[in-house]
Order: sequence, then structure tokens, then C-alpha cells
Amino acid sequence: MADYIDLDGAEQAFGDTDAQRAVRENDRNFVFHSWSAQGQINPLPVAKGEGVRFWDYDGTEYLDFSSQLVNLNLGHQHPGLVRAIQEQAGRMATIQPAMANDVRGELAKRIVEKSFDGARSVFFTNGGAEANEYAVRMARHHTGRQKVLARFRSYHGSTATAITLTGEARRWPNGTPDAGVVHFFGPYQYRSEFYSESPEQEAERALTHLEHTIQLEGPNTIAAIILETVTGTNGIFVPPPGYLTGVRELCDRYGIVLICDEVMAGFGRTGEWFAYQGFDVKPDLVTFAKGVNSGYVPLGGVVISDEIHNTFVDKAFPGGLTYSGHPLACAAGVATFDIFEEEGIIERVRDLAARVIEPRLREITAKHKSVGEYRGTGMFWALELVANRDSREPLAGDAYNAVIAACKNAGLWPFAAGNRLQIAPPLVISEEDLVRGLEIIDAALDVADSYYTGK
Amino acid sequence: MADYIDLDGAEQAFGDTDAQRAVRENDRNFVFHSWSAQGQINPLPVAKGEGVRFWDYDGTEYLDFSSQLVNLNLGHQHPGLVRAIQEQAGRMATIQPAMANDVRGELAKRIVEKSFDGARSVFFTNGGAEANEYAVRMARHHTGRQKVLARFRSYHGSTATAITLTGEARRWPNGTPDAGVVHFFGPYQYRSEFYSESPEQEAERALTHLEHTIQLEGPNTIAAIILETVTGTNGIFVPPPGYLTGVRELCDRYGIVLICDEVMAGFGRTGEWFAYQGFDVKPDLVTFAKGVNSGYVPLGGVVISDEIHNTFVDKAFPGGLTYSGHPLACAAGVATFDIFEEEGIIERVRDLAARVIEPRLREITAKHKSVGEYRGTGMFWALELVANRDSREPLAGDAYNAVIAACKNAGLWPFAAGNRLQIAPPLVISEEDLVRGLEIIDAALDVADSYYTGK
Repeated sequence: MADYIDLDGAEQAFGDTDAQRAVRENDRNFVFHSWSAQGQINPLPVAKGEGVRFWDYDGTEYLDFSSQLVNLNLGHQHPGLVRAIQEQAGRMATIQPAMANDVRGELAKRIVEKSFDGARSVFFTNGGAEANEYAVRMARHHTGRQKVLARFRSYHGSTATAITLTGEARRWPNGTPDAGVVHFFGPYQYRSEFYSESPEQEAERALTHLEHTIQLEGPNTIAAIILETVTGTNGIFVPPPGYLTGVRELCDRYGIVLICDEVMAGFGRTGEWFAYQGFDVKPDLVTFAKGVNSGYVPLGGVVISDEIHNTFVDKAFPGGLTYSGHPLACAAGVATFDIFEEEGIIERVRDLAARVIEPRLREITAKHKSVGEYRGTGMFWALELVANRDSREPLAGDAYNAVIAACKNAGLWPFAAGNRLQIAPPLVISEEDLVRGLEIIDAALDVADSYYTGK
Repeated sequence: MADYIDLDGAEQAFGDTDAQRAVRENDRNFVFHSWSAQGQINPLPVAKGEGVRFWDYDGTEYLDFSSQLVNLNLGHQHPGLVRAIQEQAGRMATIQPAMANDVRGELAKRIVEKSFDGARSVFFTNGGAEANEYAVRMARHHTGRQKVLARFRSYHGSTATAITLTGEARRWPNGTPDAGVVHFFGPYQYRSEFYSESPEQEAERALTHLEHTIQLEGPNTIAAIILETVTGTNGIFVPPPGYLTGVRELCDRYGIVLICDEVMAGFGRTGEWFAYQGFDVKPDLVTFAKGVNSGYVPLGGVVISDEIHNTFVDKAFPGGLTYSGHPLACAAGVATFDIFEEEGIIERVRDLAARVIEPRLREITAKHKSVGEYRGTGMFWALELVANRDSREPLAGDAYNAVIAACKNAGLWPFAAGNRLQIAPPLVISEEDLVRGLEIIDAALDVADSYYTGK
């Protein structure tokens, strides 16, 4: 069988009001949406995506500064990923995880090769939540301990253990389905829990707080500490100097497994293959999803240290799933590694971050009184919007919504979270598009300034 | 861009010992396997799958009587599914769940249309475990109650809540991460918990047991009863007459949500679109995965009743995932519905079950003293192997392993579970292949008979 595959097929939908109506109707009538009151949403029908852009059925173009939930690191419809999926679908769409499969093994190898010294194997899951579920399970069986420490202001997924790990409002209506989770505070200089006056002091005091938490929860009851290496949706918190190495030291001192959640931060987002590589720290388990294949096929996983792998050499690991190491998903993962090399993605991210993003955000922050702080790394940044720089009162409600609307009206789809304008475009973005997007944000912040209540 | 897609590409791997060695090495060196002691497995490298067959790198052919974990309902490399994936990959591989998407809405519509009267919407997940996690969450928020009743001898997935629902050994090493789960006994005539002497009595007594469990756990503490409509891995238990309608009545009487887990049983496996349709019962929530697109792209979901949907019209549902309603997965789901119609899958399953499978299994059971019972429906059957028909002692250990080995040596890959030879081939199997597979099983049972210890 042979067939022509058309990458541009969706364009014909522009202006097709019947198609648009059908998409809206089917969505409203039959699709139940994540995290939503079903009667209060009005999802945008998207007709086409390409590179760093997507379009609705009217042909309205959006520059994608959110990468669809920080997912499409290689952008919409990357030809290399599309081709890999099409070819693998023709070869072998799937085979059960108990068999050995070429692309599954190849992707595991590529991931381990780019991972920390002492990384041994990869357990594949369907997504990030499951990756965190299974990483916690491995840590519990490895240590024989039950408690897991996780940070406030974090998101780790929505299945029972993952939502309990989560340290923000999405957990609240879910109670505490996993009774073994304890939350602690991480460093957040702008709203310091520790009354600190420098990043170094913030790191030091956050570590003291963590050690006290460990001591008072009982060191030998704690299986793992899990943290987003660079926190994503909850604020793009880049760990201050010394923090992560300090966490590692505490883990070593108390026999605790360190789990780095890199579901958002991994695969180039911070200008490293994995974010922890920017902080001179070696985790025991690393969870990933999204960027591993830009979410073109659902995939997640856990990178496992030699030591933890060895726990399960003679003793069965009590977990698994039908789609573990799904060949179609893994083929897109292997292609991701090839594309990263061919297009020099890591180097591009570092270059554009240093040369374009950081200077422009510095400028924007100086110009707009409504920007309390900018922070970030790689293609992963946040502007903290405030109504008042002195009180640091978050910009909220109508004011915040007006800023987001201004971005969308100007053709930019932002990564809106809390009181922040966050910036996470596909890593393949051109300098020109990056400059244009930051221009739109600059203009939208005039709207934010108009709501400013400080001096 | 245009490209030729080759459905036969994998065949070139036959006899390629270097490729085979690489697959084995990468698997052993880098892939962490589900439910396994990593040092005690030797996964078969699979080079190619087509229809109801797959091949290793030596070109050894296996007739697939397990559908790769009861997953590939339409078999290996169905051209219609492959084409749908290739085309959707070229159009739009993915878009975030907060947008409206044509294939996502179309699949939700198709599923609702084939579902129970009063079905309203579909929440898409990545797989079956998550589907059960979210169904339980919906039931808890809908009722305001926390407990969930689940059956012994069941499998509901491996994330924290799903593994707690599970009523077999895979739960044991995981403790009870979800404290709200209570297990009860379902009907199982061959090893009756209720000393019953007929299927009708088994149903009646199992319902009495369930009602007593409800009354003693506290009716107004119970959010949901979850059950596999036809139990899968744990033994292919077809509910006896009156059981499911009785469970429905108990749910109505006590205000409890009925969740049918159709991750294995759904999408034609039992000769119905959904298995509950064979038992005159209307669930409130139905969970699915696998057969929805034959697992070619990871996908699962929950079919939601109007009443439960309405709970979340003004109040947000507290759960979600990045890949919810993944377009690539949904495109394969839409194609599944088309193929089912075009190829008359449901009718084929019913015809072959009644005309070929049931009579042949009856014959086999009469012939082999090691077969204690055969049971099943559609393309979903079990032979209960025993060492002794009087004591009903399960055939275990070396004896059981020898039967499985005999099947594999004769070119049939069985669905081996517990002391059972289970039968779940792709629904597209030809009569000829079905007959041939049952022939192999018949012969392998001579091996079982040789271990028989009864009279």
C-alpha cells in the first residue's frame, strides 16, 4: 500500500462556516472538558497548526507562546515528527510491552544516554501524571518508606497520587487520596517565605526549612522528595544557586530518593536536555512527558538510576500499563532526538534566551510598573504582574483578564497562569517571531499598567 | 509534502540477526518492564504484525489469540487504522484539550450514539487506568460520598486509585493507596462463594451478598460500584441471568453510581458495542480504552450520563490531562467505528461465537478431563484448567507452563492468566484461523491431561 500524505490539508477549512459549526456543536454536545465547569467554557475551534502558529476556522492566526500547555517543543506539525509517525504507523503501530520492540529500545537508549551519570533504564508511561505515580511507587519500594515530600506551588498531574503531590488549588477539591504526601515550601524570592534578602539566602533558608521538615516528619519515614526542577505552571521558579545541590545533600544524608519532575522542564525547554543538568545535580528518578515527542503521541516515562533499577532485578515491580513503551509514541521520540541534533535546538534555545528574551524582558520590566519581576531560563519565563510594586499585590480579575485578552486580540496566545504572563513558545521559534511576540506582550502590558494602583 | 507509506517495511527484518541482537540488547540494557523482575524476563523481539498474526525476527509466525493484552480488536496493522493515523498526523497530530477539535468531537459523538439511553458526553483519557480514576472521581463529586465498592477477581489499572480498585494479586504489594475502596465477591459459579447450585441462584445470592455489604458499609457512604461488565484477565466471568439488573436496582435503591469498566469488554469483544448492552442494564459511567482504536494510539475515556454531566455544568470538574482527547488517537477511534460498520464486526463476532467457538469449546471440554469448565461470550472465552475435576484444584506451576509452551511451540500465542487458557483473538479473525487456533489448543490440552491427577 502506498499513499500521499498532505501536510496542508487543513487549510481548506478556513472560512468553512459549516465545518466550524459542526466542530463547535460536537464539542458542546459530546466532549467533557478537563478542569472546567462544562457550561461556562467556549473552546476555540482550531483548524490548523504549523510551526509556532495556529489558526481558527476564520483564518485568524495566533502566535503560540504556550506551546499548547508547554507540550509542543518542536512546534505544530513538524515534518520530521509527522514523517516518523506516518512511517511507524505503516511499520508497526503497536505491540504489547512484554515484547521487545526496536523503537522502544532505541528511544530508551537515547534518553539514558542524555541522562545523568548512573542512569540505567526507562519505564515508559502514557503521560506525566502516570510517570510521577510510578516514580513514587519505585521510591517507596526501593526505600521501604511511605512518605513523599512535595512542594507547595507545584503541579504533578491529576491521578490519585499525582494530584496529592500537587501543591496548588487543583488539589483542593480532591482531598488527600494518597495519605503519604507532605508539602513544604520551596524558594520563591519575590514572595519569600523565609524573609530572605538575596537568592543565596533564599536557597539557604529554604534548605533549612526542608531539613526541619524532614526531621519533624521523621527521616526514616520519607521515601522521596519530588520537585519540578524548574517549576512550570505555578510560576517558572528557577532554583537559586545552591538549592538543588543542597536538596541532593539532604537526600543523601537521610537516604531519601530525589525525583525531578521534568514533564514541562525537560527536553530543551531550559536550554538543557534535562533541566537538572543546568544545576550540577544528579537525581535518582526523572519523570518526563510532553517534550519527549512534543505530545504528538501520548508518552511519558521515568528515567531510573542504576541503584533503583537493581531493586527490581529479582523482585517484581508492581505496576504497569498496556501502552507502556508504545511504538508509535516512541518513534516520535526517536525522531525528536534526531531533530534536536539536526536543528541544534539546545544551542538555539540558549542563544535566543541570552541574546533576545532576557534583555527584552529586562527592558519590559523596567518600562512597565505592573511587572513586579521577570524570571526564567531558556524558553521558559514568567512576568509577575502586580497591581502595586510595593505591596506586591497580584494583578487579578478583570485587570488580568484584560491583559490576556489584549495578547489574544493582537494575535498572541499566551501561557496565562495565576497573576502571571508566562512565556513558553515552541523551541523552534525564529528570532523574528520571538521579537514580534515580545512586542505584543510589551503593548499588552500598557493595559496592565492602566490598572496599576500603586504610586 | 508527499510521501509513500509502506505497510510491508518490517518484513525485511526477517533473518536479520544484527537487528534482532540490537533489539534484544537495547531492551535488556535500557527498557524497564511492567509487572516484572527485570532480571527474570526475556521479551520476544517482534519484527512484524499483520491481521491476526505476528512474527519474530527469525520469521517464526504466531497466531495471536491474546490480541496483545486484549487490545488489538481490529488486529495488527489494519490498513484503515494505519491510513487514519497517517492522514491525521499530516493534518493535525495534536492540539490541547481546551481547544475544540473536529475528530475529538466526532469520536465523542460516535461513542455517545452507540452508548446507553441518557449518555451525554465523553471525557477522554490516555488509557483505562486513568478512565477508572476519573470515573471514580466523578462519582464521588456527584454523590458527595467517598467509598467505592469493587469486586475481588478484577483488574482496573495500576495508578493509585485504579490499583486499589483491583481485586487480585497485583494490588497486594501496593497496599491501599486509596483508602475509600471496599471489595466484595461477584458471581463465579464454578467456585461459588455462595454454595449455589445454579446460575440463577448464584446471581441471587451474589446480589444478597452485595446488598449486605452495602448495608454494613453504610449506604450513604458509598459513591459507586465499579465492575468489569464481563471480567477479563481474572477469568472471563459472564454475569449470570439477573445479576447486572440486580446490581442496577441496588444502585438505584441506595443512590449509588454504577460504573461499568469496559476497557477489555467494550468495542465488540462480547459481540455488542458495549458489553452491558447484552444484559439489559443501563450504567451511569462506562470506562473504555484498548478496543476504542485497537490501541494504535493510547486512548481511554469515560462515557458520562446526563445526570452526572449536569453535576459539572456550573461546578468545575477537578481533573484533567494534557493529552485528553488527543486528535491522533481520536482519528483512529473514528476510523474504528467506520471499520466496524464496513466489515460487520459485531455480526461476525456473534456468528463465529455461536457457530464456531462455543461448539468447539464444548467439544474440547468434553474431551479433556483437565478442562474443568469453559465459559465466555463473543470473542472472549476461558478454559478453566484443573488437575482434578472433583476437587477443582487449579492446574498450576510446571503443568500449566507446559500447556502454554505447547501452544507457543505450535504457533499460537495464548492469553494465559491464572490457571486458565483464555481466548481473545482480534475480532477480524477468519473462520479458518479460528478453527486452526482452537485445533492447536485442543492438542495442547493433551499436555494438560498428562498432568491430571484425578480419576
